[in-house]
Amino acid sequence: MADELKHECGLFGIYGHREAANLTYLGLYALQHRGQESCGIVASDGSRLTAHRGPGLVADVFRNPAVFNSLPGQSAIGHVRYSTTGESGAKNCQPIVVDYSRGGLAVAHNGNLVNALDLRKDLERQGSIFSSSTDTEVIIHLLARDQTESLLERIRNVTTVIRGAYCLVVLTESRLIAVRDPNGFHPLVLGKVGNSHVVASETCALDLIEATYVRDIEPGEMLEISERGLRSFELPEKAAPSPCIFEFIYFARPDSTVFGRQVYTVRQELGRQLAKECPVEADVIIPVPDSGTASAIGFAEQSGIPFQLGLMRNHYVGRTFIEPSQSIRHFGVKIKLNPVRDVIEGKRVVLVDDSIVRGTTSRKIVKMVRQAGAKEVHMRISSPPTSFPCFYGIDTPNRKELISSSHSIEEINNYITSDTLGYLSLAGVRQACRMPELGLSDFCDACFSGRYPVKFPKLDTELQLDLF
Amino acid sequence: MADELKHECGLFGIYGHREAANLTYLGLYALQHRGQESCGIVASDGSRLTAHRGPGLVADVFRNPAVFNSLPGQSAIGHVRYSTTGESGAKNCQPIVVDYSRGGLAVAHNGNLVNALDLRKDLERQGSIFSSSTDTEVIIHLLARDQTESLLERIRNVTTVIRGAYCLVVLTESRLIAVRDPNGFHPLVLGKVGNSHVVASETCALDLIEATYVRDIEPGEMLEISERGLRSFELPEKAAPSPCIFEFIYFARPDSTVFGRQVYTVRQELGRQLAKECPVEADVIIPVPDSGTASAIGFAEQSGIPFQLGLMRNHYVGRTFIEPSQSIRHFGVKIKLNPVRDVIEGKRVVLVDDSIVRGTTSRKIVKMVRQAGAKEVHMRISSPPTSFPCFYGIDTPNRKELISSSHSIEEINNYITSDTLGYLSLAGVRQACRMPELGLSDFCDACFSGRYPVKFPKLDTELQLDLF
Amino acid sequence: MADELKHECGLFGIYGHREAANLTYLGLYALQHRGQESCGIVASDGSRLTAHRGPGLVADVFRNPAVFNSLPGQSAIGHVRYSTTGESGAKNCQPIVVDYSRGGLAVAHNGNLVNALDLRKDLERQGSIFSSSTDTEVIIHLLARDQTESLLERIRNVTTVIRGAYCLVVLTESRLIAVRDPNGFHPLVLGKVGNSHVVASETCALDLIEATYVRDIEPGEMLEISERGLRSFELPEKAAPSPCIFEFIYFARPDSTVFGRQVYTVRQELGRQLAKECPVEADVIIPVPDSGTASAIGFAEQSGIPFQLGLMRNHYVGRTFIEPSQSIRHFGVKIKLNPVRDVIEGKRVVLVDDSIVRGTTSRKIVKMVRQAGAKEVHMRISSPPTSFPCFYGIDTPNRKELISSSHSIEEINNYITSDTLGYLSLAGVRQACRMPELGLSDFCDACFSGRYPVKFPKLDTELQLDLF
Amino acid sequence: MADELKHECGLFGIYGHREAANLTYLGLYALQHRGQESCGIVASDGSRLTAHRGPGLVADVFRNPAVFNSLPGQSAIGHVRYSTTGESGAKNCQPIVVDYSRGGLAVAHNGNLVNALDLRKDLERQGSIFSSSTDTEVIIHLLARDQTESLLERIRNVTTVIRGAYCLVVLTESRLIAVRDPNGFHPLVLGKVGNSHVVASETCALDLIEATYVRDIEPGEMLEISERGLRSFELPEKAAPSPCIFEFIYFARPDSTVFGRQVYTVRQELGRQLAKECPVEADVIIPVPDSGTASAIGFAEQSGIPFQLGLMRNHYVGRTFIEPSQSIRHFGVKIKLNPVRDVIEGKRVVLVDDSIVRGTTSRKIVKMVRQAGAKEVHMRISSPPTSFPCFYGIDTPNRKELISSSHSIEEINNYITSDTLGYLSLAGVRQACRMPELGLSDFCDACFSGRYPVKFPKLDTELQLDLF
Repeated sequence: MADELKHECGLFGIYGHREAANLTYLGLYALQHRGQESCGIVASDGSRLTAHRGPGLVADVFRNPAVFNSLPGQSAIGHVRYSTTGESGAKNCQPIVVDYSRGGLAVAHNGNLVNALDLRKDLERQGSIFSSSTDTEVIIHLLARDQTESLLERIRNVTTVIRGAYCLVVLTESRLIAVRDPNGFHPLVLGKVGNSHVVASETCALDLIEATYVRDIEPGEMLEISERGLRSFELPEKAAPSPCIFEFIYFARPDSTVFGRQVYTVRQELGRQLAKECPVEADVIIPVPDSGTASAIGFAEQSGIPFQLGLMRNHYVGRTFIEPSQSIRHFGVKIKLNPVRDVIEGKRVVLVDDSIVRGTTSRKIVKMVRQAGAKEVHMRISSPPTSFPCFYGIDTPNRKELISSSHSIEEINNYITSDTLGYLSLAGVRQACRMPELGLSDFCDACFSGRYPVKFPKLDTELQLDLF
Repeated sequence: MADELKHECGLFGIYGHREAANLTYLGLYALQHRGQESCGIVASDGSRLTAHRGPGLVADVFRNPAVFNSLPGQSAIGHVRYSTTGESGAKNCQPIVVDYSRGGLAVAHNGNLVNALDLRKDLERQGSIFSSSTDTEVIIHLLARDQTESLLERIRNVTTVIRGAYCLVVLTESRLIAVRDPNGFHPLVLGKVGNSHVVASETCALDLIEATYVRDIEPGEMLEISERGLRSFELPEKAAPSPCIFEFIYFARPDSTVFGRQVYTVRQELGRQLAKECPVEADVIIPVPDSGTASAIGFAEQSGIPFQLGLMRNHYVGRTFIEPSQSIRHFGVKIKLNPVRDVIEGKRVVLVDDSIVRGTTSRKIVKMVRQAGAKEVHMRISSPPTSFPCFYGIDTPNRKELISSSHSIEEINNYITSDTLGYLSLAGVRQACRMPELGLSDFCDACFSGRYPVKFPKLDTELQLDLF
Repeated sequence: MADELKHECGLFGIYGHREAANLTYLGLYALQHRGQESCGIVASDGSRLTAHRGPGLVADVFRNPAVFNSLPGQSAIGHVRYSTTGESGAKNCQPIVVDYSRGGLAVAHNGNLVNALDLRKDLERQGSIFSSSTDTEVIIHLLARDQTESLLERIRNVTTVIRGAYCLVVLTESRLIAVRDPNGFHPLVLGKVGNSHVVASETCALDLIEATYVRDIEPGEMLEISERGLRSFELPEKAAPSPCIFEFIYFARPDSTVFGRQVYTVRQELGRQLAKECPVEADVIIPVPDSGTASAIGFAEQSGIPFQLGLMRNHYVGRTFIEPSQSIRHFGVKIKLNPVRDVIEGKRVVLVDDSIVRGTTSRKIVKMVRQAGAKEVHMRISSPPTSFPCFYGIDTPNRKELISSSHSIEEINNYITSDTLGYLSLAGVRQACRMPELGLSDFCDACFSGRYPVKFPKLDTELQLDLF
Repeated sequence: MADELKHECGLFGIYGHREAANLTYLGLYALQHRGQESCGIVASDGSRLTAHRGPGLVADVFRNPAVFNSLPGQSAIGHVRYSTTGESGAKNCQPIVVDYSRGGLAVAHNGNLVNALDLRKDLERQGSIFSSSTDTEVIIHLLARDQTESLLERIRNVTTVIRGAYCLVVLTESRLIAVRDPNGFHPLVLGKVGNSHVVASETCALDLIEATYVRDIEPGEMLEISERGLRSFELPEKAAPSPCIFEFIYFARPDSTVFGRQVYTVRQELGRQLAKECPVEADVIIPVPDSGTASAIGFAEQSGIPFQLGLMRNHYVGRTFIEPSQSIRHFGVKIKLNPVRDVIEGKRVVLVDDSIVRGTTSRKIVKMVRQAGAKEVHMRISSPPTSFPCFYGIDTPNRKELISSSHSIEEINNYITSDTLGYLSLAGVRQACRMPELGLSDFCDACFSGRYPVKFPKLDTELQLDLF
């Protein structure tokens, strides 16, 4: 269950709407699944940037309606992110907003730079100081140090220096600029609500505010939204597109359209393909909620075995649940899921999940299903073994913790105590995820294949592959 | 969508466990769907009762682990409830705990008394004072005024005076007593964890704490749990059992076993029966999440039309979402649900829901599905029209707001703008909900039939039927 | 230093002012010294009572201006009190407000009933239930049980049953009633702001809202304020007045006029008298802030020895200061006071304080003054030894903890390590506190003399004298 | 009443104590009068800096004892400051802590740089970005950009660039460095508790933690505290010392020893001198609390007129008092002060205050004293007219708001409605404040004289003199 993976971020921006901060709030709310631990909004009233940021869910950080009074103006950008705890959490909240020689500047970033550490060291050597541990602060320093007059030129310059995955939304007093890296790792879409332009990580954010989808921001595109309207620019660096295949498998919301395809449909096809590749005689198909649901429906359709919601999710589970510390037991996955005995008892059960990360959660779920009376438990995963860490924006555990990096499928099957375990092949995934105008291998599937589309500094790589 | 209906309450109690308050917390967490607006726990350490209560979700009210230090002891009871806002919310938190001539007494109540107002007036005439507007406080006054020595006798006496629906958990310094009214309107189950006995409104609370289900508390049973173990007593008043059929249709969690049957299975059968009674040519079956899901699966199975999760629920929706007040638009159901366009576009869609209350939400959902490109929208409801208010514990809107009380099915179909609208017959519901040892009509189905198993004071009734 | 004693309460009430709740808030703010641990306001809009109460200082409990919107209406009463911690703190907040047979009723109480426990047991025997441990709830029960039609009559009846010290403010939908016990233990004054009448425990509350002082509510008087204006009634029970002499010595604010005399002036005279009775050769007179200041000025005037503020009080000390728990030292009185070395070094110092309770604080202060270089330290107390507990509203420690109850002055002098220790005689106190129309011994000075003006149930007394 | 002036800051630092963060908390608590609107602590455990900062009083920001767990280590620095509201308040909290090429660095600053704006513009031109509007961030940028290897050298270099008033405490993983500007505008003292060294803005912080005073940090001194012990360095820039005379008059706590003299004693002398220069026939001397108290005692001693505390201060006044917004009246100074009628009525009153800033508060106090029955009101100010703004760390209102900058003493007397008004002469102030080893005119008394010891950029000056 990919719950153990953390999204890097979600982005939202709007220009020229008298409810800019409010709509950004709603947009972030729809993107909450992309980062649950901190969030923030920066607004511009044309002459000044103001910010409200904090650790917590969007609904919590913006619980007091009065905060919107402190975010006046007709343009705004917002960000949701995962983060660590304590003040380090507080200090890494985005968007980052600073004053520099040309006024105010706010930047929010989704992704991960592979040369951030090198760039940071360079900047520190030149006297830069850092208040956070984010790549975003590196980008802001680069933008501020560049002496070129035009901000657009400076951004273009900076994109020749930074390497990796980055979607950026940049806000100044008078402009909103959206940038997507040449590889186009993560999604970024353009929409319109009334006469105002909107950018967002996923279309579900457009849906909530009743904006219409216009088009994707292209890989390698920089889009300026200002009083003059839209202006599109090409970034100097070129690359073959390599969109993140995991956005389809786990990250994006099923109701979003990502890279031109609806995520629900892709997952359904992953499930169908999985049923073809790893068939099994069974009585019932049960998804591991919620990410496995569409794949399980596809699996059921293909196999003809009935689909049932045999594991109920507790809808009140959130970041806020604190297990009583004195507890003699660890409740773990039981807090989130409870089996429906009637659906399971005496049955040969197929569990459909999107991935296995450490294996510990899968093991608990298999055990839970057996205790509910399953005669057999067959685990089917709608992606290949996740053997390699991600360096482009997904917070995978380090490599040693990825069970697939060191164990065979048979060993994993033994560990999680399932009767059989089947993974979808990489070819099968590519087939299901195929995009209108790209070749089947035009994805970043490094987490499965180890083929990293953007190289990273040699020493770092070894270090990271070792550490991760 | 029955989201507009509010549960009265959920109950939990545990005796003789060194983690009594912690397990009560977990039990309430599993029962959160039965009441989201206030909650509380009272614990006993053998000589003193202590309480922590407040408005909010369980995870919020008990967020600070230190509160458990103020709830020492090996027995505890807990309560979740819906409530109104402001201090009136605060003052109605349960369990209610008082001191009286025989020591401390805490009571939590699930249900609604039909003669509470009369009893309250009588008590006030005799000089009783009231700090809340709950029936529970009426019950406590009656218990305190009765001069009989034995608490068990006093409870029996009080049950001859109160009329309506009541599950009670009562805690004293040394005992836990559970009571279920003679009609057995609402569920109450007995479980065991280690050597400790547990009572709870639904079995899902037992599952979470890994307690085993022992049996239902019977209609008309009073169960004492103390150092001497279990003692069961019959209440003096007798009645034909009339369990609330709406627990199956909407209230209970699908993974709970209620009145002897697993809720998921019952709902699946409701869906199958609905498909038989109201068939329709269509391309896809889509549940209105979450209560319509199991019925929709049943409908799909019976009809052979594919099941798809075509409406995505936002998982971060909670009580805490505050729409920006300055908003120029009302976002309403969009905050909760978003359509999956691929699943809907160009399709003849069957929406399966559990009920239609006011009709306004259904109308919005139909509109949303049409905007997502549906060719036809057929609404199918897994219960009969809800034409009568509930006086036994469900907070229905007043009668005039129940669209079915004054409109024909055709009128409702027009109002919600569906192509066709079909309701399951009462006979069909009874068939699907049939219980092992009861006749088919042995339910309280007053909300559909207007046949109220417990009569209420004449004037009140007229007043209430008029008002409600 | 009488900081170790806790006031029972402060009262405020206003009738017929469109800012009733706001002015009550300000009034409570001025009375904050009479109770720092919980507070509350109940307002009436003519047809309904609403309340806001909570643990904490007035400025904290009413920090959110929105609470005033929930307290509409033109009359209101308020209360500040000391209280214990945890939920027991929350549940004892006043005013208490209830519904009973005749509508809503709110009562706030300053004082202590000597027969509260007996009355409570009686009431419990008759079936009353209690949600708090306050005397106020006893009084409300008595008011609700009395079948007499007129509220004023019922209050009169209740005052024949309750014994001890009580100032009451009572609010109904349409009236405000103020009551002072026949002994007149604690102060209660009547004022006027515009056309509206105000009652308050001390005149400093009138000053803050710019109300003019009209007169004291008399001992044994019940005053009704309603649409008809003021109506005064005599209570049935008569007693010789016995105002609490400790209000002068420590409780009331120096800028208040209490029992007809300004507190500052009385304290100044206490100091002069003390200088006459216990003279000492010294270089400087230093008050223990803040209660000893006026007495120290009087002492300096009489003795001709210079007055200096040689102990500085930290103005940010409040209930909120939490000593770091891991601390290796206990900072105690240093958090509150710091010596001014120049004023003390090499000097023969006279410290003037109002009382010695346990002796521990005095001992720390003497030590602190010696460490600052004092050559001699002479302690002078502006009242006699506090040897007896108070049963009329002051939360004295139990008798065994009152150092004077078991130690001679010489022993106390040794314990607190002063060079000499002098107490003012009871005769001296009476002389300084003399009131315009009362005899010199017409005070309650039981804490010094053991002569209790209102007797209490025999068993209780022994119990209490033993326990306290 | 100088309550209208705001201190810039208070500093504290400790090295080599296992309770570093706790003692810093206590130290800041004692320095709370130097800044009430935000505070913070940075601690070092030898390899990492951690911070906790926020808007609010020390007791509020550090209310949760758990924050101390996040501040491990044996050295720490802390800061209290005034600040503006909203996020701008949050973002300006100090100490500022950053990562740069050489590790972590935290800086807290008391004072004001006259060339901060110029330096900031230079830095921005070179690409620096700013997250706050503090001078401290300018200093950190300068420290980070300097390529010199040694931190001590870099600090020395930076002090050749910055101009104005600055006391700094700097914390790295392994060292604590304290710096006082060559003019020595503001105080900074060195103390010792056990084997650990402490620095603090005032000695009252040493007193609270029971540290002994060692000596003042000298003007132009940089002191390093590390494993090697203490090392003292001279700053390259030299200047004639010019300690801020207003520290004596108003800012420092009376129990502190500042610039070698106890503040209480200085103020007493100011009062004596004032009585000599501006005698008046009167009946009573009353201080405006709290800053006027010691001067009033001196005035009374010199004049032989009795001293009385005729204005009572409300001890619960804090930053948290919020006047009900719907209020029809503005309560202003009444919230803080209440007259003692007995002391005032029929008397010729001398009010002693430290300064008059805008005049509005003085006017209200005079009015209040007259309403309490004073026959005459004579205002005596223990300093000369405050005619010039401060550019070295005191947040004076702009010049136009300083009533003395544009009005004669007679006009001010008329405005505040006193019978007579007398100011102490500058010569008199200097005499009272004389320091052991300095000449009488070796103060910064620019606020009185307009003679600014450190010049500022011409344009800025004009701008500021105009604006301020």
